[in-house]
Amino acid sequence: MNTEPQRICLVGVGLIAGSLGLALKRAGVTERITGLGRDPQRLARARAVGAIDHATTDPAEALADAELLVLGVPLGATATVMRELAPHLRDDLVITDVGSAKGCVVDDLRTVLGGLPAGFVPGHPIAGTEHSGVEAAFAELFDGRRVIITPLESSAGAAVSAVDWLWRQAGAEVTAMSVAHHDRMLAITSHLPHLLAFGLVDMLAQDPDHEEILGYAAGGFRDFTRIASSDPVMWRDICLGNRDAVLEALGHFRRDLEQLTEKVEAADAAGLEGVFRRAKATRDAHKHGFER
Amino acid sequence: MNTEPQRICLVGVGLIAGSLGLALKRAGVTERITGLGRDPQRLARARAVGAIDHATTDPAEALADAELLVLGVPLGATATVMRELAPHLRDDLVITDVGSAKGCVVDDLRTVLGGLPAGFVPGHPIAGTEHSGVEAAFAELFDGRRVIITPLESSAGAAVSAVDWLWRQAGAEVTAMSVAHHDRMLAITSHLPHLLAFGLVDMLAQDPDHEEILGYAAGGFRDFTRIASSDPVMWRDICLGNRDAVLEALGHFRRDLEQLTEKVEAADAAGLEGVFRRAKATRDAHKHGFER
Repeated sequence: MNTEPQRICLVGVGLIAGSLGLALKRAGVTERITGLGRDPQRLARARAVGAIDHATTDPAEALADAELLVLGVPLGATATVMRELAPHLRDDLVITDVGSAKGCVVDDLRTVLGGLPAGFVPGHPIAGTEHSGVEAAFAELFDGRRVIITPLESSAGAAVSAVDWLWRQAGAEVTAMSVAHHDRMLAITSHLPHLLAFGLVDMLAQDPDHEEILGYAAGGFRDFTRIASSDPVMWRDICLGNRDAVLEALGHFRRDLEQLTEKVEAADAAGLEGVFRRAKATRDAHKHGFER
Repeated sequence: MNTEPQRICLVGVGLIAGSLGLALKRAGVTERITGLGRDPQRLARARAVGAIDHATTDPAEALADAELLVLGVPLGATATVMRELAPHLRDDLVITDVGSAKGCVVDDLRTVLGGLPAGFVPGHPIAGTEHSGVEAAFAELFDGRRVIITPLESSAGAAVSAVDWLWRQAGAEVTAMSVAHHDRMLAITSHLPHLLAFGLVDMLAQDPDHEEILGYAAGGFRDFTRIASSDPVMWRDICLGNRDAVLEALGHFRRDLEQLTEKVEAADAAGLEGVFRRAKATRDAHKHGFER
């Protein structure tokens, strides 16, 4: 396995894989970036914006001399896509993905391939916008952002180095951790907030006065619900793919919300102020961390 | 009562009242803006940034020839402040406020004054930031934003006109509605989201790994929790001041969250996607409304 792979194959060229292609082209470190997908028009757009050098709908052609494969498809499509790719995977191919949950991707590859290839190193760039598709891709998406990789017991050291190298070329900082730790962290910081935002806007959507009510919504509501404009299919897959950790976070939050409700019911001014103060102090202390 | 009041008294000069002062000075329509408060240093800062022309800690002096009084104090301070002002209120004084809940302000004035003065017209500018204090004030805060006024049965027509005129001079659009309708709408679009954001960050704050977890939080989390950086005392007062409507919104949301949890538990892909699609469609349709 080449720890500085020159021929990259992007499977599915949306916001994340498309931005990775643009970032690698910006770095000028790759020989060729091939886009593999089912929709020729979408691939043509990816080539038009410069995210890939070459496009094909044929897995055999795409993987003929690829050194590293990036799975950039929605979580729910992982198994189907891997079944199509399976006959063309060489032992020295490095494989990574960009999914927002890692346990389900590992399970899918294990099932489809009958075991985990040494070249497989799961990954997750902590970056994105509420937009989707290669039209929303940009080379700077990963600049200074973190990418989590979750090397498995089966992962070859060279494959870990190759995936680490790939993301650093794209401008990101790379950190390694376990699959379980990743999935628990992301359930709290990303998956639960998305569920809450979707849930709040859906509650409003069912209010007969929602047109009027939204007319009076201010900046706080706008920012709080920005993530409710995210792709519904992608988030359906994430919530189900990371189901156990999401349910744990949901349960925890629902218990906290019950306590908060009791404080409002009891007009417990000191109790409410305590929660709000602790929250503000925690967020203010980390503000610059996630605002970089 | 003057329907175009020239001498304005701002009681409490924080973000909202301070910005109103700056906006009125920008419009050049007032003769004098007096700031009344307890803290001379804070009043000096308000004069230094140009939000008021004159500062005093003496209610008698502040109200001697004022035509319109704007109560810009936190909701929890309404009753205390009104008790101090009561001896100095003339019958032809127009009185308004900027509180995020209206029923509790009306109750406080009725109790303290032994009835509702004809000059009183509650108001609420739908504008603000997560920052507080006159240092965060700016003249453009209300430009193109909505101000809700809730005229009471006791309100004189001239007082309603004066408050309407005031906010239009500050650049805002003014709409009138009932106290109950205001309080229900704001519970949904503002008070509930604040409780959820405070609650989520507080849940994180109590996690032993919260330092690390926050290090991986991305833009979605940053925007979702921006309102958790708001002033804890102000939001304690709002949640308790608008308790009935907040509890109704909380109850509604908790039932919806229970259903969402059941969908995740049951791996109900179609059900989850339906909620997410409806939420995205509703938010996208209104995006430009609250992003102006």
